[in-house]
Amino acid sequence: MIEQAMATALAASAAAVGVSSPNPPVGAVILDADGTVVGVGRTQPVGGPHAEVMALREAGPAARGGTAVVTLEPCNHTGRTGPCAQALLDAGVAAVHYAVADPNPQAAGGAAALAAAGVTVVGGVAEQQARRGPLRHWLFRQAQGRPLVTAKIAATLDGRIAAPDGTSVWITGPESRAHAHAQRAHLDALVIGTGTALADNPSLTARRPDGTLHAHQPARAVLGHRDLPADATLRDGAAPLVQVRSHDPRDVLAALPDALWILVEGGPAVLGAFLAAGLVDEVQAYLAPTILGDGRAAVLDSSVTTLAQAHHLRRESIAVLGEDLLITLSAH
Amino acid sequence: MIEQAMATALAASAAAVGVSSPNPPVGAVILDADGTVVGVGRTQPVGGPHAEVMALREAGPAARGGTAVVTLEPCNHTGRTGPCAQALLDAGVAAVHYAVADPNPQAAGGAAALAAAGVTVVGGVAEQQARRGPLRHWLFRQAQGRPLVTAKIAATLDGRIAAPDGTSVWITGPESRAHAHAQRAHLDALVIGTGTALADNPSLTARRPDGTLHAHQPARAVLGHRDLPADATLRDGAAPLVQVRSHDPRDVLAALPDALWILVEGGPAVLGAFLAAGLVDEVQAYLAPTILGDGRAAVLDSSVTTLAQAHHLRRESIAVLGEDLLITLSAH
Ligand SMILES: NC(=O)c1ccc[n+]([C@@H]2O[C@H](COP(=O)([O-])OP(=O)(O)OC[C@H]3O[C@@H](n4cnc5c(N)ncnc54)[C@H](OP(=O)(O)O)[C@@H]3O)[C@@H](O)[C@H]2O)c1
Ligand SMILES: NC(=O)c1ccc[n+]([C@@H]2O[C@H](COP(=O)([O-])OP(=O)(O)OC[C@H]3O[C@@H](n4cnc5c(N)ncnc54)[C@H](OP(=O)(O)O)[C@@H]3O)[C@@H](O)[C@H]2O)c1
Repeated sequence: MIEQAMATALAASAAAVGVSSPNPPVGAVILDADGTVVGVGRTQPVGGPHAEVMALREAGPAARGGTAVVTLEPCNHTGRTGPCAQALLDAGVAAVHYAVADPNPQAAGGAAALAAAGVTVVGGVAEQQARRGPLRHWLFRQAQGRPLVTAKIAATLDGRIAAPDGTSVWITGPESRAHAHAQRAHLDALVIGTGTALADNPSLTARRPDGTLHAHQPARAVLGHRDLPADATLRDGAAPLVQVRSHDPRDVLAALPDALWILVEGGPAVLGAFLAAGLVDEVQAYLAPTILGDGRAAVLDSSVTTLAQAHHLRRESIAVLGEDLLITLSAH
Repeated sequence: MIEQAMATALAASAAAVGVSSPNPPVGAVILDADGTVVGVGRTQPVGGPHAEVMALREAGPAARGGTAVVTLEPCNHTGRTGPCAQALLDAGVAAVHYAVADPNPQAAGGAAALAAAGVTVVGGVAEQQARRGPLRHWLFRQAQGRPLVTAKIAATLDGRIAAPDGTSVWITGPESRAHAHAQRAHLDALVIGTGTALADNPSLTARRPDGTLHAHQPARAVLGHRDLPADATLRDGAAPLVQVRSHDPRDVLAALPDALWILVEGGPAVLGAFLAAGLVDEVQAYLAPTILGDGRAAVLDSSVTTLAQAHHLRRESIAVLGEDLLITLSAH
């Protein structure tokens, strides 16, 4: 029953990834005294209610004597919203089960406060799923003080991202592009270089397959000294534009203090700069079943001269996306 | 019982791939009148007995009244060895089951001859396994008049085969290298360019993990005009050396008239030339979980200028080899 409810809470929280930043994307489920699900909630955009409060609202009086199942230890601190531990006490829940303890000293203490008030408190439920899943980016930021950085490569099997004449639409297939767009709706920011911005005039918005915009749009960060033209699509207001007039990837991170997860889309020089700076935590390589044999390479990294300096990653997963493969690798 | 015997015959024939060229690598199993396996054989190197004869020798008098299970229709022609159909009749087998009909008009007719002599004959048993498996390269040559050409790429995830300083040992891991060596023992020839021959002074022999040579060694073909030095390892006699003083991949095929399966190992210029000539039937990409971001590209193909001209392949399989992936794609 608790496991089932935690699976529901995790699924609910997945939709909040990116949307809740800088707050953690939490999911909560309220079971009534008989164990029936009477409320499900997830963290709302900043300033809005936390997951527990959303779930309690839906549960109403049915929460009394029931159980709360939450992906993160309920917070004990009064920020923009009141503490969730207090809300759970006010609602009269008899037990709280959570996945991950809050590593943030300011917010921690919720479990202790609940236990002190006589509530049964159990931590560590499905903890690894929560850590590797919806809470991954937020926990990374808590531990490292910077967002998790994913580098995306969308290339031919021989590592090319454009033909000699510059044509690059489309290297990968519709399934890969749909996957990338669905993911964009959960990112805090996308990063490109001025080269890509000027060459492609991209929109970088998160769109559904029918072309409509997702409610959450990641910020669009451009690294490089050159100006963008006044009529650049990136200036259309569909999402924030962050211009970082530098060649140092660290300056991108500094310009995005609330970001939990950023994706470096390219081009080759910017991917190389993030790799050289040791700022790539994960690589997503979408590989098409094609060979160009000429044209632009996916990554240009002037820091590598000999094979021993190659950036070594660890394979995480392989997914089939239509004709393409998505190979995900971790740098850690 | 027949299916089981055919699986045994196919497994036996797999060891003859490359070894039996230009003859087909056939496997045969003899069951006695009670259905017990009394003989297993495979095609011997050219001039030696065919699979049926090997299996009949092992079976001896137990073949009388029994069943022969063969991966290819028994031949009906007297070449360097007598016809297998006659050998099966002489041994007194009562039934013959085979996978693939012989497409070669000279050798075909075995099934009809056996049936005319009163033997029960059944064709098409596990036909697809035989066609896609051990008989694939031989059937390709029968149909196309040239060997099946596999292009091998062993690269980083971003398509590099050497770092800027030229270091390339080792891009892929030990499991990939062991896989490539095991496969070499079944090839008729390996092809490299003079660039690779001069830069790496490779041996290109098929070696076991302990360094000892396999009994069958593929020919070593070098494409390009330059001379090889007198002390080149390729001149060591461990396997035939075929120098093709040309830039045309077709000349390599002409120089290997008996070959059923050749592997193009590179370098980039030679891989590109085979792709540009439309002479790549299959690509094996061994991809390491590394990014170089600079250095030599795996393929150089001067025939492609725009994305629409990219060589498009079809994914056949993905295998995990230690840290690496082996992605196999078909051009057909
Ligand atoms: N298939 C794909 O997934 C994909 C993705 C992205 C891009 N692309 C293609 O890539 C091409 C653009 O290539 P690109 O190399 O010009 O793109 P880029 O990496 O986006 O931009 C390079 C520019 O970024 C600036 N920059 C910022 N930090 C830098 C650093 N550390 N080192 C060097 N330069 C830095 C420099 O411009 P300033 O002089 O302005 O400072 C530099 O010229 C386009 O054709 C695009 O279509 C393909
Ligand atoms: N990681 C791997 O799997 C792998 C595999 C192989 C090679 N490599 C690396 O590749 C590097 C060698 O590169 P490479 O490009 O020099 O090698 P290559 O492709 O083996 O040789 C190129 C040479 O082949 C001749 N050639 C034959 N046909 C040609 C054609 N159609 N077009 C152009 N040239 C043709 C030319 O030499 P002539 O002037 O003599 O005619 C040309 O200079 C080495 O560093 C080696 O380590 C890596």
